Amino acid sequence: MQAELARIVGAGNVLDGEGLSDASRLPGYADALVLPETPEQVAAVVAWAYEHDVPVVPRGGATGMAGGAAPMGGVAVSLARLNAVRELAPLQWRMCVEAGVTTATVQRLARENGLYYPPDPGAAEDSQIGGNVATNAGGPHCFKYGVTRAFVTGVEAVLAPGELVTAGGPARKDVAGYDLAGLLCGSEGTLGIVTAVWLRLVPAPAARRVVYQFSEDLDDAIQRFMACGFVPSALEYVDRRAFAAAAGSFPGQAGEGSLVIAEADGPGEAFEEGTPIDAAELWRWRDGISHAVAAVHGAKLAEDVAVPVERLGEAVTEVAAIGARHGIESCSWGHAGDGNLHANFLFDPGDTPARARADAAAEDVFAMALRLGGTLSGEHGLGRLKPLRGAPAAHAALKRALDPKGLLNPGVKEPASRGG
Amino acid sequence: MQAELARIVGAGNVLDGEGLSDASRLPGYADALVLPETPEQVAAVVAWAYEHDVPVVPRGGATGMAGGAAPMGGVAVSLARLNAVRELAPLQWRMCVEAGVTTATVQRLARENGLYYPPDPGAAEDSQIGGNVATNAGGPHCFKYGVTRAFVTGVEAVLAPGELVTAGGPARKDVAGYDLAGLLCGSEGTLGIVTAVWLRLVPAPAARRVVYQFSEDLDDAIQRFMACGFVPSALEYVDRRAFAAAAGSFPGQAGEGSLVIAEADGPGEAFEEGTPIDAAELWRWRDGISHAVAAVHGAKLAEDVAVPVERLGEAVTEVAAIGARHGIESCSWGHAGDGNLHANFLFDPGDTPARARADAAAEDVFAMALRLGGTLSGEHGLGRLKPLRGAPAAHAALKRALDPKGLLNPGVKEPASRGG
Repeated sequence: MQAELARIVGAGNVLDGEGLSDASRLPGYADALVLPETPEQVAAVVAWAYEHDVPVVPRGGATGMAGGAAPMGGVAVSLARLNAVRELAPLQWRMCVEAGVTTATVQRLARENGLYYPPDPGAAEDSQIGGNVATNAGGPHCFKYGVTRAFVTGVEAVLAPGELVTAGGPARKDVAGYDLAGLLCGSEGTLGIVTAVWLRLVPAPAARRVVYQFSEDLDDAIQRFMACGFVPSALEYVDRRAFAAAAGSFPGQAGEGSLVIAEADGPGEAFEEGTPIDAAELWRWRDGISHAVAAVHGAKLAEDVAVPVERLGEAVTEVAAIGARHGIESCSWGHAGDGNLHANFLFDPGDTPARARADAAAEDVFAMALRLGGTLSGEHGLGRLKPLRGAPAAHAALKRALDPKGLLNPGVKEPASRGG
Repeated sequence: MQAELARIVGAGNVLDGEGLSDASRLPGYADALVLPETPEQVAAVVAWAYEHDVPVVPRGGATGMAGGAAPMGGVAVSLARLNAVRELAPLQWRMCVEAGVTTATVQRLARENGLYYPPDPGAAEDSQIGGNVATNAGGPHCFKYGVTRAFVTGVEAVLAPGELVTAGGPARKDVAGYDLAGLLCGSEGTLGIVTAVWLRLVPAPAARRVVYQFSEDLDDAIQRFMACGFVPSALEYVDRRAFAAAAGSFPGQAGEGSLVIAEADGPGEAFEEGTPIDAAELWRWRDGISHAVAAVHGAKLAEDVAVPVERLGEAVTEVAAIGARHGIESCSWGHAGDGNLHANFLFDPGDTPARARADAAAEDVFAMALRLGGTLSGEHGLGRLKPLRGAPAAHAALKRALDPKGLLNPGVKEPASRGG
């Protein structure tokens, strides 16, 4: 296999595929890892794989939390060497970048040109824009601005059985065909491989005014910030247990209950509630919460569910109750305005029974999300870790339509009966 | 046929299907027009049609410009009696409405509750939200806020062969399955029939400050407004010929060149350029342009293309040149910031040769849009009037996946070789 792939991408761009995982730490391996240097090479690899019935697993920065980039054999395709900035048009609020450009680079290029690319998933230094599209990545500032999808006006992608296509483009509106670009957003590499993205940008915000508040009634606090008369650019919460794990470095004054963080970024916008805090310091601290929580026992299982915003408080309380019921430490934080919780269960890396209890607790979190009218994933995707529930016929029909052989990232975004 | 349909929806809800068209005035007829009163009845009608190989054409307010709701036989399904407001949750910035609720009602319900639903296609009093979703409708205020798709968090829809499904819902984020709700947006009734929509809303803007300016250099004027440091809530243009048709009722001071209209709606936002004008008066006038232009000769052919914003001036100039080349009066106006032009060719209703020249001119407009890196439709859809160009295999595969018998709105969004 490696020799045949070397003929497509060059011998120096074919590596051993052992030990490939992502932030899920799910064990993964491929028969080969290829690093194409052009979109045409990606198309040729997919064509070869489709001809030989070999699974294809695209990989971006491998920062995903759900195992979507952890292959189980076949050929892994890294997009890292597709990292050209094809167009940067600041006056038109637009750029076109290849899939391997990092999220941080997109953000920096925007910022250096007086513009702003709002989606801000964690690990922006490592995560790549192609992976962001594949998972429809979110982040704190998506509350006001929308998730990755809202910034994608077009994609270039390789579809089965190996065709390089474009859908959408630099124009900001397009209803001429079906929304293939939108369908690829969040499809986790199971419908095609994104090779380049046209992004719309917005003018850089006038300022960032961040306030924080501790509250024993999370729903009430969120509701008050939502009644401020404008859309906060971020509206986050950190529950008392997650806060405790990161309290030592908190740049403000600790308090009782859940921490609520709100940011306003419009020229005339200001909150009447909360304590002002330096925005850069606060966000730096916020970015470290996941690591601080992981450090408590050395390992954690992180789940990402979303519920209607008025059910957030109930969901946060229930995550704690679920942890207690399963005898495992739990906490949660997330994008409160979007009703998007990151529920975490903490355990010792070597404690296999605790890991099993965490898995059982996660099942209860999924059931809760559905019961509250929500969804199993707000922004991380299903990957290999979460089975597709309900499995509507339409989902399967779309998969068959674009991947008739089922070779694109098999086992990902699938019902429990298949895959890992 | 009518008797069988009467058993599903009741005899009083089956009407004659003669003379059904939309704002395209394309002649249309159906063997029956049914008006289901529940989503389950819509599903039963589709099931019946799928069983008997009868085409199904959904109809909203029939305000579409492209003939997407003008049937060519089969059963036409009006969603007008599915007009319940299922949920109105102002504190959560959310509503759930059935497909037949008018756009104006959605806008009013939002406004009465301190909120705002930005998409504002023309004919809001008649157009229905289900049709807005089906065409992914736009309007002036989509420049800042995004088109209909950006406000849809979920849909309830009937898919072939007659299944009532939901995709998404009240939660604001969801990457658990493929984005079926997004795929239905802009699909023009060819993949399924939307029966209800969950909409996200935003707080009502602080104020509307509108300015206008006449400019001989459209691109320069647009560029200056885009450099204002924030996203204008609308950025429109009206070329000199379209302005002339509506000049009599213009509430400001007429000038030379194209009219540019810019609106700011954030609390601290203000333009340094342009002449202030009353927002309500200006938008009322703007809404009447299409009628004023149509009145010049009694009829017009309106095309809706979008180009990268920096090509707008070139496109506007070319529309005029195309009209001159074909010996037919032309003008254009539209959503400048989105590069979305409505190119119009004017003729006498009885003048068949002029109508043919208008059609030929429209072909040149399509070719121009593609040459400039744009698209054949920014917000009206392809309907029966515009053939799908390029016809990617993926488009056809998605159609086959969700409508294997090809019975959902046949002839719409199809390559030129098929349909009307």
